[in-house]
This record gives sequence, structure tokens and C-alpha cells, in this order.
Amino acid sequence: MANKEIPYKIYLDESEMPTAWYNMRADMKEKPAPLLDSKTLQPASIEMLSQVFCKELAEQELNDTDRYIPIPEEIRNFYKMFRPSPLIRAYYLEKKLGTPAKIYYKFEGNNTSGSHKLNSAIAQAYYAKKQGLKGVTTETGAGQWGTALSMACSYFDLDCKVFMVKVSYEQKPFRREVMRTYGASVTPSPSTTTEIGKKILAEHPGTGGSLGCAVSEAVECAVTNEGYRYVLGSVLNQVLLHQSVIGLETQAALQKYDIKPDIIIGCAGGGSNLGGLISPFVGEHLRGEANYRFIAVEPASCPSLTRGKYAYDYADTGMICPLAKMYTLGADYMPAPNHAGGLRYHGMNTSLSLLREQGILEAVSYKQTEIFEAAEQFARVEGILPAPESSHAICGAIHEALKCKETGEEKTIVFGLTGTGYFDLVGYQRFNDGELEDYIPTDEELAKALNKLPKVD
Amino acid sequence: MANKEIPYKIYLDESEMPTAWYNMRADMKEKPAPLLDSKTLQPASIEMLSQVFCKELAEQELNDTDRYIPIPEEIRNFYKMFRPSPLIRAYYLEKKLGTPAKIYYKFEGNNTSGSHKLNSAIAQAYYAKKQGLKGVTTETGAGQWGTALSMACSYFDLDCKVFMVKVSYEQKPFRREVMRTYGASVTPSPSTTTEIGKKILAEHPGTGGSLGCAVSEAVECAVTNEGYRYVLGSVLNQVLLHQSVIGLETQAALQKYDIKPDIIIGCAGGGSNLGGLISPFVGEHLRGEANYRFIAVEPASCPSLTRGKYAYDYADTGMICPLAKMYTLGADYMPAPNHAGGLRYHGMNTSLSLLREQGILEAVSYKQTEIFEAAEQFARVEGILPAPESSHAICGAIHEALKCKETGEEKTIVFGLTGTGYFDLVGYQRFNDGELEDYIPTDEELAKALNKLPKVD
Repeated sequence: MANKEIPYKIYLDESEMPTAWYNMRADMKEKPAPLLDSKTLQPASIEMLSQVFCKELAEQELNDTDRYIPIPEEIRNFYKMFRPSPLIRAYYLEKKLGTPAKIYYKFEGNNTSGSHKLNSAIAQAYYAKKQGLKGVTTETGAGQWGTALSMACSYFDLDCKVFMVKVSYEQKPFRREVMRTYGASVTPSPSTTTEIGKKILAEHPGTGGSLGCAVSEAVECAVTNEGYRYVLGSVLNQVLLHQSVIGLETQAALQKYDIKPDIIIGCAGGGSNLGGLISPFVGEHLRGEANYRFIAVEPASCPSLTRGKYAYDYADTGMICPLAKMYTLGADYMPAPNHAGGLRYHGMNTSLSLLREQGILEAVSYKQTEIFEAAEQFARVEGILPAPESSHAICGAIHEALKCKETGEEKTIVFGLTGTGYFDLVGYQRFNDGELEDYIPTDEELAKALNKLPKVD
Repeated sequence: MANKEIPYKIYLDESEMPTAWYNMRADMKEKPAPLLDSKTLQPASIEMLSQVFCKELAEQELNDTDRYIPIPEEIRNFYKMFRPSPLIRAYYLEKKLGTPAKIYYKFEGNNTSGSHKLNSAIAQAYYAKKQGLKGVTTETGAGQWGTALSMACSYFDLDCKVFMVKVSYEQKPFRREVMRTYGASVTPSPSTTTEIGKKILAEHPGTGGSLGCAVSEAVECAVTNEGYRYVLGSVLNQVLLHQSVIGLETQAALQKYDIKPDIIIGCAGGGSNLGGLISPFVGEHLRGEANYRFIAVEPASCPSLTRGKYAYDYADTGMICPLAKMYTLGADYMPAPNHAGGLRYHGMNTSLSLLREQGILEAVSYKQTEIFEAAEQFARVEGILPAPESSHAICGAIHEALKCKETGEEKTIVFGLTGTGYFDLVGYQRFNDGELEDYIPTDEELAKALNKLPKVD
């Protein structure tokens, strides 16, 4: 262990910030299965992906050989606005739990988007600008990704068209206003600005919309407007690549003080933060340089890694995007309302899914009342009010720390605190009022959507 | 100027954090006029103040001789959770403005209370705990101070009773939920839990309350409950003392890179942030070691420093608290609705008022539409979405930087960015929708309240 005194917050100097992203797939002997064109079921090519995504991002999506990809200087300059993010020793949480474990968390919430999403948003906006595009389109649910993207587009003077699920647009106006302040146009979905939107509105007048519908509108808008491409905030391997900056900084901060983690924990929705945090450590693990436990924490209401199936499935409910081989609950699965909106995705990034299948990545799930209990406990001792999504990782870390208390083991636990809960206070209010309910799907419910998985192979 | 390359964000090491607060009054030859008991009009004694405030805080309130007051270790430990705060070079804002000026801002928003208020909240909670109290009472309008205090009380396991102006309680439920999450009890004011509350409710059934009424309830609650004292987040000299940590860190960060500021700018409500930021520099100025310009920026709708009178006045509209000699618009002045709620105070800290009277502190005011324009411009280039209060300092800094553009002077401007605007999005929404209106009181309106100033001397 360290001889140097470990500060409460470990900050890297700007000169210690990563200059290249880490591409975990380069170290994977078995590569993640290829994306398949949803019409032909043939492996997706760069040309095909480039019709929807920016060209360099399509290349990154298919690149499973280059271990490091340099971070362009413009992106590194932007990163300096809010990075390096601190690695914080949870002294107060340890004390409260009475555990011999040492707990650290990498805090990604200290920026106006409120989460790690900005790491990939700025990269995707950069490549769009470089390609000479006018703008990008995307969908957003609660608005975390849309907010990050609007900030990134404002920086590069790109137009940003966000399709926001109508019910969120109306009920959660604050992130919408942040996006507008950054100059994005925010359209409630379904809308009359797209063919698919009009069709859905004709079939379901008065619908509040869904993420699947918003994706479809965003993709149509990108494909039918000259100079636009579609961008996505999670699930894709390119997103994990950009998010590797989280893990690389964490690795550098730990090395600076000779700290060796035993367990690394992240919350899991589409995999953007989990993959970003763990990938450089998985690389060490795969190269035989170190041995870590990796734990994904997901909501019991949307348990893709713990109760899903490893199979090819549609990445979007609209079935427009390519198919991916992943842990999935079925593209048809409608997760019950849960205040961790960012984790309500039926599938999982393909690389993380493969690691799970290989037994390298463990997975656990917790109910949302357990999550909010952990969130409140954390907030009261560590100061930071966490996002419900991030609180899954907190809950997982507390469980592991309490195991150490039982066994007396002084394990070192690192978890990712992806963001703040300032826009999630309706969830906290329901928790404070004792009105929060848990939803756990029955096996029958899960089977219903899993039985509809496409037949591939 | 510096030989070392100046990073985007200057962070002090934990070992460089201040170990003592700076008490500006010790360096003032003419001392601020004493507080006067509201009944006897005699100078307030420690004994008298101790009936309402914690004893050590009452001592700090009257201490105008000790230049430094050590920060107790428990408070320094808490500070490490969210301090040192970064001093950020506004490279992107400079570029956008095309100014030769060098602009730096001290950012106090990276904590869950969202502002600098936590610096004093934790100090006040500490002294309450040390005195063996059960808890503290306070009032809050928009909720920034109440949030900070609830976090501080949670840390020291103190009860925290917050009286929140009823209209804010109902219309701004989110900060209320943060307070509840930290274990505070939040009562909409006026309430039936106090005599003054019952009286007001009987006289004005259905009233939405006011800050003055909430102060009165909080003071009554402290005085009538065994083991409770009343605490306040601004205006008092003890608050400026605690907030000097902002200025001391700024001074240390500038010295580390041999940067000498020309102009230091802060937003001004009761003076907590402005005084905290400028006081160590004012000290240098008063001791003849340096020469700076200090600028207070206030809302045109509540212009105490620019259009008020330097005179004894009641500190609260309920006229319970001691009288203070200060720049005031009259305790009766009702500022028009303005989205910078934290700056809607009729008076100003006594020390800052004296500096203004002596010509050491300059003051300017801007309309709220100008403030939101500056806020949006700043957010788009610097990333951070600022609180409307903080945006007054941004607006002031932009004006000075544009003057440099005209004259070609390479001045160094430092301003205080007190907090984030995540709970102020109704204001941003109205600005985005073009619905924000400006309010500038007429001379007649101002005269009305100023004519009612108490006759003292």
C-alpha cells in the first residue's frame, strides 16, 4: 500500500490526463459478435453504418484491433473544462458502515450535463464537425444525454436536434430548458416533423411517446436531412471507447498512490459508464497483468445481465438500427416505470455482454427502494446527492463493503459515481414520502419478450 | 506575469488550503458601526446576541481585532469534501469576447448545495454542536441556504428546522426535497407552529408568506425551544469571516502562478460571497500592499449599494433582529419578483457598506434580461450553467472585459461564480421564451421605503 498520504480527493494534473482512448476489444481474444444489418442480417460495414453515423465514428465502431486511439487535441481541450474528474476516498462512508474496506469513487457529476455523458458527446460532435456536417440528431428520455450533446454541439457550433419523449418533455421541463439554453431544438416525440411520427400519432392519438419512437424519429430526421447524422449516448462500442477516459484517469490516480483495487463496480444500463470505467482494468486482466473482480449493478426492474438472454436482438424497439449480439430482455420488453430512467434499456453493449458470458463480469440487481436507501445514506455522509442511476453502483459498493465487515477483509473497492440527482428529485420525493414502489418482472413476463427474439444464425 | 504555464483550472493541494479565516475588520482603521439592540438602540453585546445566536458565533460577530481566526479541524475536514474549489481561467469566454483581458473565476458551485453557502453553514453547525445544542432554526427563500444548512446539520447530527416561504415551498419543491433527504424538517411559512405565524395567518388567510415572516418564525422557534439557536446565511460579519475561505484560496491560487489581479468582481445580495471573495484582497489594499478595484454587482430591481442610503436600519422586515448601519433600501422595501432570489435583500453587510461609503468598493447594477444574456453567453462557452445570482458577477466581468477590448488594456479580472442554476430553470425558461421582464424601481418608490428608516443618532 501507499507510503504517501492519500488525500480526500485525488486530482490528476492536466499534464497527466489521457491522450488516447483505450479500445478494450483489441485485448479481447474472442471479439464481440458483429453488428448485423437489420434488413439483410449481414455484418454491418463501415459504408452501411456511415449512412446513419459519422464516418470516423463508424470506423471506431468496427475497430477491434487498435488498442489506443489518440484523442484529438480539440477534444482534449474541451475535456479540460470538466476533467480530470476527482477520485474520491469515501472516508465518511467507510466510517458510517464500520467496514475495514477502503472505498473510492470516481465522480463524473461535476459538469452542467450532470453526468459522464459529456465524455462521448463532445467526441461525437467533434467528428460530426470534422466531417463538415451541419448538425446531428438524437433522442433523449429524461434528458441527460440530450443535455450533454447540446453542450457539445454549442461548443462546435453544430445544430442539435433532440427528440424528447413527449411525456418527459411535458413532465420534466428543466433539462429541456438546459438544452434550449445551449441552443438545441427540442421536439416532443412523436411529432409531425417526421413520417414515422405522423404515422404513430395517427395510430395512437394523444400518446405520450416512447424512447423507441424517439429513436426512429431521430434516425429518420438524420437520414432525410442533408448534412445530418444520428448520434447515440450509450450501447455502442464507440461510446465505450470515449468513456474509457474515466477508467484511464482512475487507473492513473490509483497508480499515483500505489493503490491496487480488488473490486470495480459500475451501474449498468447500456454500458457506457460501466464499460468506460472498467475497460482499462479489464485490459490488464485480459493481458494477465492483474486480477480484479468486476461487478455490474442493474435495476431489478430491468435485469438484462442477470435475467436476460445472450442472443442477437434489435438494438432499438423500432428495429431500424443494426442487430447486436448481447444480453437482452427482448426489444419488446417494456421496463416498468423506474426512477433510474437511464438504466431502462432492454439490451447491453456487445463487449460487456461477451465479458459477462465469459464470466469475467459479474452482475447483481437491486430494487429501487434499496437503491434510494443507499443514495440517501451516501448523500448524508459524503455530501453529494447522487443520481438514481449512479446509486446502483453505490448500493453494490455498500454490499461488498459490508461483506468485508463480516469477514474482516481490507479490500479496496472502486466504484463509478456517474452523476448527480438534481433533476431526479421527484424520485427522492416519492422515496421521502414512502410512496416508492418496487417492480420485479415475473419469469412469465420476461419469457413473453424473450420468445420474440429474432431468429439469427 | 507567470513563467509557469497556467492550467485551465488551478487547484490547490489539500495541504495548501487555508487553516484560518481572515477577519477583514481587523485591518479596517474605521470599524463598521456596531449592531444596535432593536428595543434599546444600545450596541448589541455578546450576551444579548447569544440569546439568539450560538455563543462563539456571537463572539465572532463582534470581533473586529483578530486578523486571523483558526478554522477548527472538524470544519477543515468537511471543507475537504468540496474544497479547494477551482480557480478557472475563462479562456473560452475571453476568446468569444475578443478581449485582451485575462479573466479568472472562482467556482463555488461544485457541491450538492450548489453554492458557496456551505462554507458558512458547516461552521455555524459546528459551533452549535460544540455548544451542545440540539439543533438550529433558519429561514430560506429559494432554498440555497436551507439546503446547505441541512447538509451541514446532517454531518454533525444536529436537528435542522427550516421555515421556507410558503410560495417557494409549493412552487419550488426540489430544493425542499434535497433538504428532506438530508433529514431537515421543512415547514411552509407562515405556519401554525409559532405565535407569529398564527397571527399572520389570522390576519392574512391564504398568504404565500414572505422572507421577513419566515425569519420571525425561525427566530421565535429558536428562542422558545430549549437547545436551539437561530442561524443566518448572509449579511452578518461572522458569515463574511467564514466565506473568507473563498478569497484566501483565490489569493493562494493566484500567487502560485504569480498572477496579479487588477479588478475583483462579485455579485451582491447580503454580501456573503462578495465579502468572502474580496476581503483578503481588501486587506492587502488597506495595508497598502496592493491596489485593486473592487466591484459589487447588484440587480437593478434591488439596488441597495447603487441607490440606497447609508444609515441604520432593521436587518429584517419583522424588526426583531438588531439594527445595522448599512446601505439599505429600507426594511419595508419589497423588491419586485426577480429570478435572482438570493440578491433580493434590502440591506448589505456593514463592513462592505462602510467600504462602499469610503469609495473602496464600487457598485454597478444590471437588469435581469442583461443578466440572463450574460448567463447564456457564459454557459455556452464555459460549459457551466450559472445561477442567476452568480450571473451578475459574470455580467460585470464581461462589461469590464469589453472595456479592455476598446482600450486594448490587458487587465486581469477575477470574479466569483457562486453557484449553479440547476434549480433556477424557470428563470431560464422565461428568458428562452422571451417572457422575462425587467423591473426598475422609480425614485418615488425608493423614497417611500427610505422615508421610513428608523431615527437613530
